[in-house]
Amino acid sequence: MTQKPAIILVNPQLGENIGMVARAMLNCGLTDLRIVNPRDGWPSDRANAASSGAFEWGVVPTIYTSTVDAVSDLHFTLATTARPRGMIKDVYTAHSAMAAAHEKITKGQNVGILFGAERTGLENEDVALANAIITVPLNPDFSSLNLAQAVLLVSYEFMSQGDNTPALQTHTGKTDIAKADAVSNFVVRLLSSLSDADYFKSDDHRPTMERSLTNLISRHQWTEQEISTLHGIVSGLIKVK
Amino acid sequence: MTQKPAIILVNPQLGENIGMVARAMLNCGLTDLRIVNPRDGWPSDRANAASSGAFEWGVVPTIYTSTVDAVSDLHFTLATTARPRGMIKDVYTAHSAMAAAHEKITKGQNVGILFGAERTGLENEDVALANAIITVPLNPDFSSLNLAQAVLLVSYEFMSQGDNTPALQTHTGKTDIAKADAVSNFVVRLLSSLSDADYFKSDDHRPTMERSLTNLISRHQWTEQEISTLHGIVSGLIKVK
Repeated sequence: MTQKPAIILVNPQLGENIGMVARAMLNCGLTDLRIVNPRDGWPSDRANAASSGAFEWGVVPTIYTSTVDAVSDLHFTLATTARPRGMIKDVYTAHSAMAAAHEKITKGQNVGILFGAERTGLENEDVALANAIITVPLNPDFSSLNLAQAVLLVSYEFMSQGDNTPALQTHTGKTDIAKADAVSNFVVRLLSSLSDADYFKSDDHRPTMERSLTNLISRHQWTEQEISTLHGIVSGLIKVK
Repeated sequence: MTQKPAIILVNPQLGENIGMVARAMLNCGLTDLRIVNPRDGWPSDRANAASSGAFEWGVVPTIYTSTVDAVSDLHFTLATTARPRGMIKDVYTAHSAMAAAHEKITKGQNVGILFGAERTGLENEDVALANAIITVPLNPDFSSLNLAQAVLLVSYEFMSQGDNTPALQTHTGKTDIAKADAVSNFVVRLLSSLSDADYFKSDDHRPTMERSLTNLISRHQWTEQEISTLHGIVSGLIKVK
């Protein structure tokens, strides 16, 4: 399995939040959850209940008694914090931090990301252990992420940078995109039916109107099934009396 | 104010979730929340309680009785769904969809994003109204986002694509990055103190050791304050008896 960043929760308070963090992680394929001194103890029924099964489906929690121990095998440690700490340290966005994480991991390094307690965040002592800081750029007038949401955004950045889903796909179901001849056959048929219905009135405007109708149909991509439906619409309408 | 996408919740069930959606939106600067037939009614104390003040700080909720009404002023409507619907439709990732949203908005178009009810998601009738689909690429073996998390990821993609936070900043507090002369002065001082302490033992290895120590210090960027601290460390250590 490809190595992925560890998520390290330092002094988390509520079991529910630990469970929701596990759920957020696994949505993005992360499984290494390190928990330093969970206030309400471990194991936690509340964490399990809030995890939507993330612990059964892959997230492995490990308990530590100090942040130093929790990061001991890491080559590159990032600390998440919303505020500057008066500390000399590089500050990444979530996006650029996860680009750096991919790069370090490709070189065989272990990467981990520290998240502080609900409300209070990381202590300066924990931030000092990290190589660099992540500050997620958010609305400066309203930055109010909960712990699991912060983990979700950082994990999502890691996953999406390794993702190769095409930017745009067209779902066509069982049919295929129509070729030009199917489209132009329909246009010919439409113009002919309109002519029969005396739609074009004067011959003066007819070429312009025909070009405009041809464009109306041709500028979209249609599927074969849709072209067939369009033929059916014309067939239906010409029966109207 | 720059136009931003509307978030449209179709048949949401719990007030708490609507509040958490508002909170997720405002973190990313979105304020236009459209709610189609909220099951538990509106206004909602539970929504307010879960919003962390998002409704007071900018999110404007509007209630509609149909999805058709809720999207009526939009030029480009996206439907979020995790599964294919056997419908002929373009499918974007969250990232590419929000790139398209920025482009449409730049052209003066109104953009909105439909989210279905908790558990069941959007009805096919609602998906059919949209111009295209968003499917957030997640762990195929464990895709389990709640409503507010789905809104958060899409809103975050919109915000971060308009964000110009530098990928990497260095917080130096009140001090500046040291120039080469400050660094090399320290290196000279270090080598001299080590020489006094008879660190280099043989003259054979001395040039190599000096080069290696010079590199150890020089390959990092230091601040002026840190160089001063390094001098202090040397001064402290040479007093050890």
